[in-house]
Amino acid sequence: MTVDVSRFSINQMTVRQLPLPELVAACGELGVSGVGLWREPVAAYGLDAAAKLVREAGLTVTTLCRGGFLTAIDPHARVRAIDDNRRAVDEAATLGTGTLVLVSGGLPPGSRDLHGARERIAQALSELGPYARERGVRLAVEPLHPMYAADRCVVSTLTQALDLAERFPADEVGVCVDTYHLWWDDRAFAEVARAGAGGRLYAYQLADWTTPLPQGVLNGRGQLGDGTVDFPEWHARITAAGYTGPVEVELFNDELWARDGREVLAETLERFATVRFP
Amino acid sequence: MTVDVSRFSINQMTVRQLPLPELVAACGELGVSGVGLWREPVAAYGLDAAAKLVREAGLTVTTLCRGGFLTAIDPHARVRAIDDNRRAVDEAATLGTGTLVLVSGGLPPGSRDLHGARERIAQALSELGPYARERGVRLAVEPLHPMYAADRCVVSTLTQALDLAERFPADEVGVCVDTYHLWWDDRAFAEVARAGAGGRLYAYQLADWTTPLPQGVLNGRGQLGDGTVDFPEWHARITAAGYTGPVEVELFNDELWARDGREVLAETLERFATVRFP
Repeated sequence: MTVDVSRFSINQMTVRQLPLPELVAACGELGVSGVGLWREPVAAYGLDAAAKLVREAGLTVTTLCRGGFLTAIDPHARVRAIDDNRRAVDEAATLGTGTLVLVSGGLPPGSRDLHGARERIAQALSELGPYARERGVRLAVEPLHPMYAADRCVVSTLTQALDLAERFPADEVGVCVDTYHLWWDDRAFAEVARAGAGGRLYAYQLADWTTPLPQGVLNGRGQLGDGTVDFPEWHARITAAGYTGPVEVELFNDELWARDGREVLAETLERFATVRFP
Repeated sequence: MTVDVSRFSINQMTVRQLPLPELVAACGELGVSGVGLWREPVAAYGLDAAAKLVREAGLTVTTLCRGGFLTAIDPHARVRAIDDNRRAVDEAATLGTGTLVLVSGGLPPGSRDLHGARERIAQALSELGPYARERGVRLAVEPLHPMYAADRCVVSTLTQALDLAERFPADEVGVCVDTYHLWWDDRAFAEVARAGAGGRLYAYQLADWTTPLPQGVLNGRGQLGDGTVDFPEWHARITAAGYTGPVEVELFNDELWARDGREVLAETLERFATVRFP
């Protein structure tokens, strides 16, 4: 069986042990045409230099990760957050990607008001959406697993993310669907269909769910095929929703980071090609 | 302000460092009238002896934890699970509690079929419900946080738990609502109302959500007031749903377990009295 890997994109964090030039070179050798970048390593390398590097290599930047953290109550902190997100939009435009992924933010210290935090996100999006659209960038709200609701992202389900996105034009705010965060939710597939029908399905990321979870629960995103995510079913549902864009693999995993980055990239591509068609 | 702690119940796991007689004695000294028991320490002490001990101390056994683990595919494993749950029902009856809490079970090894696992739980409940009712015991399905969906409980939301329970008579199958598992869900309060209206709100447990989560994410249930759960709001919603039963505090927490058990019990009672009315 021939497997189409042309839509495969490697998120930079999956192989963060690779400096950007090595990542770009490895993509060239393995026939990988898409890459999802992160702001911090891009800034470390230099924004313009990074943009030039990927452009000259013919790589498509599928997403920039990440903006967000829009839940602060303090007015000065809110201004700083909006400013930082405007910079993230500018960086996305410079890198040539039309998709900025947003991790919306957790509860501010001492607050227990989830609803209020979600409303402040909406308020921030109303400022950022038009700014981004003028620069050809769309904001992809990523629902994060409920285990991150307190300290990272109060948007915990695709339903919530779409409820938020649908307050804004469909070419301004949409969603980033990540299997790791949503696999457990019996509403997820219906919401994927809703996102597709509404033109809000901006980005699609894969990671597998493996247990036991590590301390802090950040760096246990499993290699494709190692866990409990039903990728063939996800592939069918995402396809049925009309999504034809890049499929990004984003793993935060201490064990993968300890290995040779090119080897991990080759393995990830191989897994990508096989897990969808077992 | 006078705070009514008559509905307070201490779950045995919160102070598992206390042998049962010491727990019973400490409850007497502190004016605690309810206790939630676990099968394993009860069996270690002796079922009949435990029943006699709590009965003679005038303690109410608010729940028995726990039955469940009903997701096996293998027919022999299913028979063993049903048999074990029948024994759990018998133990609940012997201990004088009318509520058996069920942790439904995760995905069987190698399976990625969440829907199938949930259906097997329903199948098992259809066998267990009548058996339990004949013995004066009701089955309280406890939705566990989505971070446990793979390895512990595929019932992740109160919506799912009620969808399951409502297939059965309201005096056979209901739900156990635990703030730790549900606090993040924007549907939780509406579902609490649904549970109350349908006569399915069998048990109510408290724990706070604190971060960072520990490795394995089992023993990080926070002491009341230390985390992000909005207890006054929960108290208002549970009360509005018509719930007048015991309120059990169930903490799994390595730091609490390392301390003097009586001191932890006293602290927990104190926190219980204050977090609801800050």
